[in-house]
Amino acid sequence: MEIEFSIVIIGDEILLGQVSDANTSAIIRALAPVGFRCRQVLTVGDNAADIRSAINTSMELTPLVITTGGLGPTKDDITRGALMEIFGGTLKEDPEVTLNIEQVFSRRGLELNPLTRLQAWVPDTARVLMNRFGTAPGLLFTRRDDTMKQRVICLPGVPSETAGMLPDVVVPTLVEEFHAPSDTRHISYIVAGISESALAQKLDAFEDALPAEAHLAYLPNGGWIHLRLDISGGSDEQAHTLSTALESELGPYLLTHGYHTPAEILINLLRERNYTMGTAESCTGGNIAHAITTVPGSSDVFKGAVVSYANSVKEEILGVDPLTLETLGAVSLPVAKQMAVGALRELDADCAISTTGIAGPSGGTEEKPVGTVWLCISTPQALLTHCLHLRGSRTNIIERTTTEAIIALIRLLQNPSWTF
Amino acid sequence: MEIEFSIVIIGDEILLGQVSDANTSAIIRALAPVGFRCRQVLTVGDNAADIRSAINTSMELTPLVITTGGLGPTKDDITRGALMEIFGGTLKEDPEVTLNIEQVFSRRGLELNPLTRLQAWVPDTARVLMNRFGTAPGLLFTRRDDTMKQRVICLPGVPSETAGMLPDVVVPTLVEEFHAPSDTRHISYIVAGISESALAQKLDAFEDALPAEAHLAYLPNGGWIHLRLDISGGSDEQAHTLSTALESELGPYLLTHGYHTPAEILINLLRERNYTMGTAESCTGGNIAHAITTVPGSSDVFKGAVVSYANSVKEEILGVDPLTLETLGAVSLPVAKQMAVGALRELDADCAISTTGIAGPSGGTEEKPVGTVWLCISTPQALLTHCLHLRGSRTNIIERTTTEAIIALIRLLQNPSWTF
Repeated sequence: MEIEFSIVIIGDEILLGQVSDANTSAIIRALAPVGFRCRQVLTVGDNAADIRSAINTSMELTPLVITTGGLGPTKDDITRGALMEIFGGTLKEDPEVTLNIEQVFSRRGLELNPLTRLQAWVPDTARVLMNRFGTAPGLLFTRRDDTMKQRVICLPGVPSETAGMLPDVVVPTLVEEFHAPSDTRHISYIVAGISESALAQKLDAFEDALPAEAHLAYLPNGGWIHLRLDISGGSDEQAHTLSTALESELGPYLLTHGYHTPAEILINLLRERNYTMGTAESCTGGNIAHAITTVPGSSDVFKGAVVSYANSVKEEILGVDPLTLETLGAVSLPVAKQMAVGALRELDADCAISTTGIAGPSGGTEEKPVGTVWLCISTPQALLTHCLHLRGSRTNIIERTTTEAIIALIRLLQNPSWTF
Repeated sequence: MEIEFSIVIIGDEILLGQVSDANTSAIIRALAPVGFRCRQVLTVGDNAADIRSAINTSMELTPLVITTGGLGPTKDDITRGALMEIFGGTLKEDPEVTLNIEQVFSRRGLELNPLTRLQAWVPDTARVLMNRFGTAPGLLFTRRDDTMKQRVICLPGVPSETAGMLPDVVVPTLVEEFHAPSDTRHISYIVAGISESALAQKLDAFEDALPAEAHLAYLPNGGWIHLRLDISGGSDEQAHTLSTALESELGPYLLTHGYHTPAEILINLLRERNYTMGTAESCTGGNIAHAITTVPGSSDVFKGAVVSYANSVKEEILGVDPLTLETLGAVSLPVAKQMAVGALRELDADCAISTTGIAGPSGGTEEKPVGTVWLCISTPQALLTHCLHLRGSRTNIIERTTTEAIIALIRLLQNPSWTF
């Protein structure tokens, strides 16, 4: 049985739209493997009444509530007080936390100020979850009801601290408190080249025929879909039968088994083949290189990139013909091809991706509107060029081009005669 | 007076941690200038009871609720049904929506399937908000209570569609329905080089002396802080007096007035000076180029980047001395400096940033642990090298190096004798 939990995200900075919440997905991903499933996320501002109400509502919904934010040293940070109104207790200095704060500051070469030191004063109703990644400690509050035990874990709002604390202290604490392994199987597939609605239609009969304990989840990601078959409490044999049937339904749209991002799939594939790669990027501005190098171990296969935003860089480093640039423009098939060839040569790589297009919002023409992007994909076996016609914001066009290009290189490595 | 609203984000994909919610900040940023302030964000799964309960709870809290997600064509998508349980109505085909769906599909060269066509059937209790960016239309439900009017706007979950619909149809509709300009002033500053707690301590007396109608908000962003002075209903003169006093408190930590990301500040500064720039990136893997080229108009000043992940690329394109690489290693002051000089020359740029470091999780040594990053910043007036000692995940080290490098180039352009 999975255990449900709720998240309460605390911070004016999110409600004011200045910062996107990065903690939710980090918490959910860290807790899923040990059998916890998120039921609800509630985001509120730095306001004592709203924080109290959010925590109370969430405690009614699920036996575990995780909060982030409002533990810092400024006047905005009032989570600790709100929790003490619910759970009682008085503030006492925790000498171990004081020591941690002093160490963090000395490591950073910063002077310790009294406000920061106050973070070592924690409610005596809470258990401290040591934060080795910053100064505000995590807190675990427990309340035993007539029928059940309620737990609230408070984490700091800084994403790097939460990300560090999850494997370091939160997951071990939860496993210890709940003794909870999961008995639900999650079988994941990455699917590309088909829209969510077309895929749903294709799988309509398969879905209708699924037994009650099985469920299919569509998780679209802008250019690819993570399809997940969830089966609770079934046998190995049943899981095998259902997953084999699903795979044959997916046919050529199946990119890979298991949950991997396209960048991870590409890196694994290149490593298997003992190939290296590089990119020559104009409109994507380095985002393909960034997407690939975000994956740990990418340095095994990724040699580098030339971001040729200016035409002079296309000519000087990548060796694109100035006459082609002048007559056909930078956003053209021959320029994309010459960029890819230049990347192969200059980066001494086996495979290359090149992009040249108009990400907008300005720069479009009637003939080449914003969203026109030429791609070239090259492997030792094949070279493919293609023109994308994308819509949406500048960020959207950059992101979508990045995904399409990475998936195209995967496809071309899997099958040298693949085309868009 | 600001009007408060709530957001309800619907989608298993977010509660499963596969996708981060991008709609919240887009909605909040689009609505703030016309006087709407977000009170709460509630994220629930694709489950009819939870959706209904989330919308009802939110309607009790604020007069306007905006939902995203669950309007698509698959079996997961059940927002429309949940809304009809609250507001009543029967489904009728809207011919204008059918036409829009047909146009979207023909533009994309895709075949229209029956599931998609069903999206044109909308409750007759709702007003359609046309979605020119996709197939699922937005919906506006209105209920008049004894004392007030309640409105719920449903938007699709796909971020590019929501981002497109906000200025296109949502904001105009809200302005028409609420006639609401704001009388709260927001005066923003970007502050860097000081921690949130040290800044709070520095501004302690200033904050205590603020009149009741003024409030200071700290919005930390990993490497820089957006500080915002909010004053409701005051005079121009009062705003001027308070902001002048705050600026003098901030002193050298003030990076710029107004809300701009560091990349935007840098691009504006380069444009003013008529300078160009480029980057030579190792551990940041193209992320600095990406951060800069995400800003519209960056092509005016950004010439390009060499992502030299492999040492061979550092040598071949950037001209880094092989002996230096061999004796001191890639993560060293001389290599950072040679990379920056190579970028200036090869990209023919006036300013350059270079990075070489260990982003982890592997690759660290006792002498150079994960998080050791050498930066070199070069302008026509100055050249600066610096070693960062960062902690956190790979992504965190990449992001933080990117921010620190961009801020350092801004500082060095503002003051050629600036140092870390």
